[in-house]
Amino acid sequence: MSKVEVKGRVSPFPMPVAILGVMLKDRPNFMTIAWFNRFNGNPSIWGVGIGKGKITLEAIEKHGQFSINFPSSDQIAVTDYCGIVSGRDVDKSRLFNVFNGTLEHAPMIEECPLNLECTLYKLVELPKAVLVLGEVISAYSDDRFMTNSILDPKKVDPILLTQPDNHYWTIGDIVGDAFEVGNKLKQ
Amino acid sequence: MSKVEVKGRVSPFPMPVAILGVMLKDRPNFMTIAWFNRFNGNPSIWGVGIGKGKITLEAIEKHGQFSINFPSSDQIAVTDYCGIVSGRDVDKSRLFNVFNGTLEHAPMIEECPLNLECTLYKLVELPKAVLVLGEVISAYSDDRFMTNSILDPKKVDPILLTQPDNHYWTIGDIVGDAFEVGNKLKQ
Repeated sequence: MSKVEVKGRVSPFPMPVAILGVMLKDRPNFMTIAWFNRFNGNPSIWGVGIGKGKITLEAIEKHGQFSINFPSSDQIAVTDYCGIVSGRDVDKSRLFNVFNGTLEHAPMIEECPLNLECTLYKLVELPKAVLVLGEVISAYSDDRFMTNSILDPKKVDPILLTQPDNHYWTIGDIVGDAFEVGNKLKQ
Repeated sequence: MSKVEVKGRVSPFPMPVAILGVMLKDRPNFMTIAWFNRFNGNPSIWGVGIGKGKITLEAIEKHGQFSINFPSSDQIAVTDYCGIVSGRDVDKSRLFNVFNGTLEHAPMIEECPLNLECTLYKLVELPKAVLVLGEVISAYSDDRFMTNSILDPKKVDPILLTQPDNHYWTIGDIVGDAFEVGNKLKQ
């Protein structure tokens, strides 16, 4: 064995990338996220880590609603931009065509192939971030991103992030069927 | 706009895949996970959603320690297998060469290119799962998975999962530099 301790902060390998939408006082705001996942299947409860002091966190605390929007790899520049500049300094509402579902304070991005509207479920305090847990109320896509009525990853063409190298990636090739390829190891 | 509501449970797109290690009474046990991410940078706090009733959850509650191990795509069959069979029924301790770092109850998988040992930070109750928050104490890899002393995603060759299509994927190509490609949109 030749294991070595890895210096520096290690990240999940890789992380999905999305854009979180909230309503500020007078406009929609969008912030890029990579620290999120789903944690409960039904109801569908997702968690997002947001740094303390972010204006997005204030908006979620105020309205109890937000959206999660999944961009395609051809939206990489605007996606990165939404993670570089703050809604305190810049009006990001004009970057996208915005639509609403059933929630008033969960603005969604029309150009993104997958959109979720969420209500706040719980806030969990962490040392330098708040873990925002939200329940997905509805999800939206477009027929052109689906095959046989389910989302097709190759058509959605999502963006991945790896750190600490700080690269965005596409998904590659299918290497197996989940809950199937391991059956051959059964005794 | 031609948005349609998506039926069924929507997942993050895509999810990283890892194997969680715990100590049962008499042996290490390993369970495949995809519902996890990091939520606080420093200290490095990660969250994992684990279904209620899982023996892995009992072990974490008892010992307050666990590991997260990232497999390569050539470990896909054994990774899937660890998500299909329960440690209540099957001894999964012989599937891997196991090593320990500084924690007694966080067995790690030698064959995996990246290993984290974690102590329990907090448990958050969800309707059908428990969100286990853990702090990363140490991370381990091997020089052959690194380039210029940082983890190289192409060498690690991680496994991704998409649902509801239930496919495992490799990562594809680099499409941009994070915190850089968006700068061109600055006014």
